[in-house]
Amino acid sequence: MRQRNVKKKKEIIANSKYIILKPELYKGKWFDVFENNNPIYIEIGMGKGDFIKENARRYPNINFIGIEKFDSIMALAIKKIEQEDFPNLKLIRMDASDITNVFDKEISKLFLNFSDPWPKPRHEKRRLTSGEFLAKYEKIFVNSNIIEMKTDNRSLFEYSIVSFNKNNYKIEEISLDLHHDNKEDNIMSEYEKKFSEQNNLIYYMKVVK
Amino acid sequence: MRQRNVKKKKEIIANSKYIILKPELYKGKWFDVFENNNPIYIEIGMGKGDFIKENARRYPNINFIGIEKFDSIMALAIKKIEQEDFPNLKLIRMDASDITNVFDKEISKLFLNFSDPWPKPRHEKRRLTSGEFLAKYEKIFVNSNIIEMKTDNRSLFEYSIVSFNKNNYKIEEISLDLHHDNKEDNIMSEYEKKFSEQNNLIYYMKVVK
Repeated sequence: MRQRNVKKKKEIIANSKYIILKPELYKGKWFDVFENNNPIYIEIGMGKGDFIKENARRYPNINFIGIEKFDSIMALAIKKIEQEDFPNLKLIRMDASDITNVFDKEISKLFLNFSDPWPKPRHEKRRLTSGEFLAKYEKIFVNSNIIEMKTDNRSLFEYSIVSFNKNNYKIEEISLDLHHDNKEDNIMSEYEKKFSEQNNLIYYMKVVK
Repeated sequence: MRQRNVKKKKEIIANSKYIILKPELYKGKWFDVFENNNPIYIEIGMGKGDFIKENARRYPNINFIGIEKFDSIMALAIKKIEQEDFPNLKLIRMDASDITNVFDKEISKLFLNFSDPWPKPRHEKRRLTSGEFLAKYEKIFVNSNIIEMKTDNRSLFEYSIVSFNKNNYKIEEISLDLHHDNKEDNIMSEYEKKFSEQNNLIYYMKVVK
């Protein structure tokens, strides 16, 4: 997401009740953070948080953690989320590559929505579905690995299909035109709304290992 | 493919030098038919044969067998193919469900181009990428199983991705818009030309087990 500068972003983040400032302290202890044993779903690259927030609203018996790299975007997300009260939602401002410092066999599902496609071959490792990232995710899932991915970027989606299969994930569900399939439980991210209004195809898949 | 009645179709088929009239006699002996040990690629549902014929022309060191269910369509294909001489091409008029009576561990690659989508759930077993058909193909491949599929039917393609993965095939290559990828070695079938001219998206994948 393109960054806009947000005033007092550091302050907004430091003062939010949703933010976990030192997430590495809770590695292996996230059920304690939520004070229950409900499954934990995370979204890497939550952007302004529409997707994770609406999930938290609809599914009170699931714990959600939204992860975002950029201070400015996280601050904007906080402003929206703080208007309501979600006991089952936490936010982490961090880079996805640090994920294994923060979680240890406690995640039930990972969402990747409209991730940066990093189109240049030399940036392949930065794609959130690269072999390098899949190896990291290996350490955070509690039982089977479940990843749900949405994007409008054809190249990233094609790349991800091959990468998932290469790393022994199986595609259990797929849509090559999600918005024409009228998937009833689909929750849209900000990007998804925008790109869909531009008549881009929205791709979706659920993979399991 | 919609059937048109073709005059003397039975006669055309019976008299073609390309046709193997009793293919079950050659089960396990197809290298003898071609009188060489080159790999054998087959296409199920060859239609009027543009794809298999052009393959035979471009790749003289591979043996090709085109399979088509309908007499009328096979007769039309023969009329086109008989204008030239392809020592590495044979044709079989049969239903795909009989394939295990005809081949035994001797096929190196299977092409499925614009197969009938059989959209109704109760017809799922008839789709050429159903678990039932994949189980049959299991018996015909000589080494690894390699299938290349093209279609413009989104539902069939999505179904096939899931079915391939469920049956332990991995997707090694995929394009969700083949004709914009300018795949240099792409050989078009009749349907592909037609649907592409209608601006349909052409989907492609290569799967391996």
